[in-house]
Amino acid sequence: MKKTAVILVSGGMDSALTAAIAVKRYEPAFMHFNYGQRTSCGELKAFNDIARYFKVKKKLIADIGYLKKIGGSALTDRNIPVEEADLNRKSIPKTYVPFRNANLLAAAVSWAEVLGAQKIFIGAVEEDSSSYPDTTKKFYKDFNRAVKSGTKKESRIEIVTPVINMSKKEIVIQSYKYNSPVHLTWSCYKSNDIACGECDSCALRLRGFREAGIKDPVKYKKNIKW
Amino acid sequence: MKKTAVILVSGGMDSALTAAIAVKRYEPAFMHFNYGQRTSCGELKAFNDIARYFKVKKKLIADIGYLKKIGGSALTDRNIPVEEADLNRKSIPKTYVPFRNANLLAAAVSWAEVLGAQKIFIGAVEEDSSSYPDTTKKFYKDFNRAVKSGTKKESRIEIVTPVINMSKKEIVIQSYKYNSPVHLTWSCYKSNDIACGECDSCALRLRGFREAGIKDPVKYKKNIKW
Repeated sequence: MKKTAVILVSGGMDSALTAAIAVKRYEPAFMHFNYGQRTSCGELKAFNDIARYFKVKKKLIADIGYLKKIGGSALTDRNIPVEEADLNRKSIPKTYVPFRNANLLAAAVSWAEVLGAQKIFIGAVEEDSSSYPDTTKKFYKDFNRAVKSGTKKESRIEIVTPVINMSKKEIVIQSYKYNSPVHLTWSCYKSNDIACGECDSCALRLRGFREAGIKDPVKYKKNIKW
Repeated sequence: MKKTAVILVSGGMDSALTAAIAVKRYEPAFMHFNYGQRTSCGELKAFNDIARYFKVKKKLIADIGYLKKIGGSALTDRNIPVEEADLNRKSIPKTYVPFRNANLLAAAVSWAEVLGAQKIFIGAVEEDSSSYPDTTKKFYKDFNRAVKSGTKKESRIEIVTPVINMSKKEIVIQSYKYNSPVHLTWSCYKSNDIACGECDSCALRLRGFREAGIKDPVKYKKNIKW
């Protein structure tokens, strides 16, 4: 029997590929977060569709709406507009949700400890991911240390990041290799129905597909060549 | 003008003392968590009373009810009874909520980063606290490392634990020295109205008062000599 692993699935392409990699070796326990993000409906639909695709038996949707109360990000505060994409931007974009991934991981570790799961998969990407500090390898290494000291000795929980070194182009290529359900994923930061095609997340995705020489199965409102 | 610090206030004696220490130097932003714990009403009342006592202007009550969904603890799962106190117990007690403090801290860091606060105070106690792994100095040191790598460089956020080395006896003594509102605090793991006097938390508190030679201003259902 396969061991259980907790897999964080936002509904985007990175986490879908991460799930496709994880299910090869582990029985998946899918976890999703609602934090009052603009695209929570689009993401939740993608999460449920991807879970169905992988025939996932254990699912947990955690509400961390306090991140919306805290605000400080264009993803959670309607008064901060989502910037148009700038793939050469050097600063941290306004869509950065302060320390968001630590909030997701802490909850995932709590669930893993109760389930007896020793691995937690997260689809963080260091290079391509708009320089958010909580998507760096250094952060995951440090967080893993805190997981080790903050949980029961026998729990032996570890966070793993199988796509952290990939470019978006590589993620597209690997997604098809691993039969990830790319057509079910949701990446857009702005809309819940048809992807906008002009936010950072759409732009990164579209450029990745173009560089991989593959056509994105998802529809866009605007067809900009990124 | 004083700089702002986020202070985690559960409503217990340790966090009230931590707040009393912090307000000497910082403008307090009080944070409280509801995670579906048995004594959420008693704790929330204490939190609000303590905030009023310190004339706190910024308060945030964060709902992390997913910890109740996750379960695995006598504090959040009504099917797991709260054990009677055993102050010589060596194993991790059933009231351990898996990796709970990391969940609280991650949220506090998110808030601190938006507020521009550089300190987060938490009333963790290593010695007395029933051997929970997430109350050790090692855990806080490791978590601080993850905070540094996972937040913006200019944020410079640090978690501080001013009472971590104190015994319960010392916490009682220091509480009176710092004018902490001991009479408003709530420690019991079992009840929301009158403290039970027989759970781990009541027992630790009562022994602390006895050793300090001070009478606890809070009422108890049972007067056991711990």
